[in-house]
Amino acid sequence: MSGRLIGVGTGPGDPELLTLKAVRAIASADVVAHFAKDGRNGNARATVAGFLRPDVEELALRYPVTTEVPRADPAYARAIDGFYAGAAAAVEAHLVAGRTVAVLSEGDPLFYGSYMHLHVRLAQRYQAEVVPGVTAMSGSWSQAGLPLVQGDDVLSILPGTLPEAELVRRLGQCEAAVIMKVGRNLGRIRAALAASGKLGRAVYVERATMQATHAVRLEEKADDVAPYFSLVLVPGWEGRS
Amino acid sequence: MSGRLIGVGTGPGDPELLTLKAVRAIASADVVAHFAKDGRNGNARATVAGFLRPDVEELALRYPVTTEVPRADPAYARAIDGFYAGAAAAVEAHLVAGRTVAVLSEGDPLFYGSYMHLHVRLAQRYQAEVVPGVTAMSGSWSQAGLPLVQGDDVLSILPGTLPEAELVRRLGQCEAAVIMKVGRNLGRIRAALAASGKLGRAVYVERATMQATHAVRLEEKADDVAPYFSLVLVPGWEGRS
Repeated sequence: MSGRLIGVGTGPGDPELLTLKAVRAIASADVVAHFAKDGRNGNARATVAGFLRPDVEELALRYPVTTEVPRADPAYARAIDGFYAGAAAAVEAHLVAGRTVAVLSEGDPLFYGSYMHLHVRLAQRYQAEVVPGVTAMSGSWSQAGLPLVQGDDVLSILPGTLPEAELVRRLGQCEAAVIMKVGRNLGRIRAALAASGKLGRAVYVERATMQATHAVRLEEKADDVAPYFSLVLVPGWEGRS
Repeated sequence: MSGRLIGVGTGPGDPELLTLKAVRAIASADVVAHFAKDGRNGNARATVAGFLRPDVEELALRYPVTTEVPRADPAYARAIDGFYAGAAAAVEAHLVAGRTVAVLSEGDPLFYGSYMHLHVRLAQRYQAEVVPGVTAMSGSWSQAGLPLVQGDDVLSILPGTLPEAELVRRLGQCEAAVIMKVGRNLGRIRAALAASGKLGRAVYVERATMQATHAVRLEEKADDVAPYFSLVLVPGWEGRS
C-alpha cells in the first residue's frame, strides 16, 4: 500500500482563507511538507500553523541558495532542477512507506507554484490530489475592492520577471492585467506601465490579506521597494457598471 | 447604524472548497442574497446550502429573461442595467435597516462575477468587504491535475463569448490560456483553437469539483455540447519539469 500525495493551496495569507478541504487535508496528513528559503519556514507554513496536529511529521524542502547565480545561467537551472529532484525523492520516501503527504503551496498549487514540480515527478506513480486555493491575485483585488474584469474583458497574467520590452509589448495587447512576482522588479514594471500608457490605472497591493497589508495607486507610491508578496493590478473595467 | 455588505466567493462548486471566512460570513449574516436564473436557485446557493442558518432571511436576485434579446442589442443592455439597479436597491433596503447582507458569488466575487455590479453601486456608501474565493479555473486545472503556468509563462484569460476572429488573434498572442464562459460557444472556441494551432493541447473540463465532473482532451470530445460550468484549458507548460 503506497501513500498519497496532496498538493494543498493555502491561499493568499489570511488563515481564514484556507478552504475546509485544505484544513482537513492538513489535519489528517501523516506528513506536512513545505518549501522554505534562507532557513525561514515560509508563508504557507505560517498560514496553517494553527491547524497542524502537535504530532504531525514536518518536512521542510529548502531551496538552495542561488542568489549569487544569475537566473539565465545554466548553473542556476541545474541547481534548481537538482533541488526539485531531491525534494521529490524526500517526499517519495514517505509515499513508499504508505504515508499521506500534504505539500503546502501558497495561493493555488498549480498556478505558478513550486508544488507542480513535485506533481509532474510523482503524480503518475502515486495517488495524487490537488486542493485548489484562493490565489494571491484574488486576495489582492478583493482587499482593494477593485472589480478587475467583467463580461467580455480579456485578462492577462504577466510575471514581473519578464524583460521590460516584453512587458511593454504584452501590456499593449491587453486591457486588464495582473503583474505577479513584483518584488525587486517594481522599477522595471513601473517603466513598462508608463511606456504602455497604463500607469495611471495601476494599483499596487502589498501583502494582501495579511496583517501588514496596504494598497495604493502605483503613481502615488514614492519608491520602488516591494516585498515578494506584492502585485500590480490594472483593471480593465472602468466607467462601466 | 447602517448595515454591512459582504461579497462572498463560494468557489467552484464543492462545498469543501468554501473558505473558513466564507462559512463564517454566511453563518453570521442577517440576509443571504444570491443571483438566480429561470426560477432556479443557482449553483452558489446550492454550494452553501449546508451552512445556512434555518432562520436566515434569503433574497433571490432574479435575472430578467433576456434569452430572446441578442446581447449586442441596446435593449439587452437596458434590461441588464435595470436589473442590477433593482438588485442594488433590494440589497440597499436591508443595509439601510442595519442588516448585514452576504451576497453569494460563484468562484471569486470580483472575477467576472455579478456581485461586482452591486459593489460598484453600494461600496462607497456602505461598509463593504469582499471574501475572495477559489475560481472555477483553479478548480478545473486542479481537478485535471494539469500544471498550467510556471516561471515566466504568461497566462491569458479569454471569455468564450468573444468573436471567433478575436479569439484566434488572442490565442496567437499567448502561450497558456483559459477560456471561460464556454457553454454554447464551444463550436466557435474549437474552431479558433484549431486555427491558432492550439487544439491539440486544449483540455475541456466540465463541472469541475462538482459530482458530475469530467475532463477530456478537447480533440477527443465528440460534440460541442457544454454546460455553463465548463472551461477550456491550454497549458503553456509542456516538456518542462
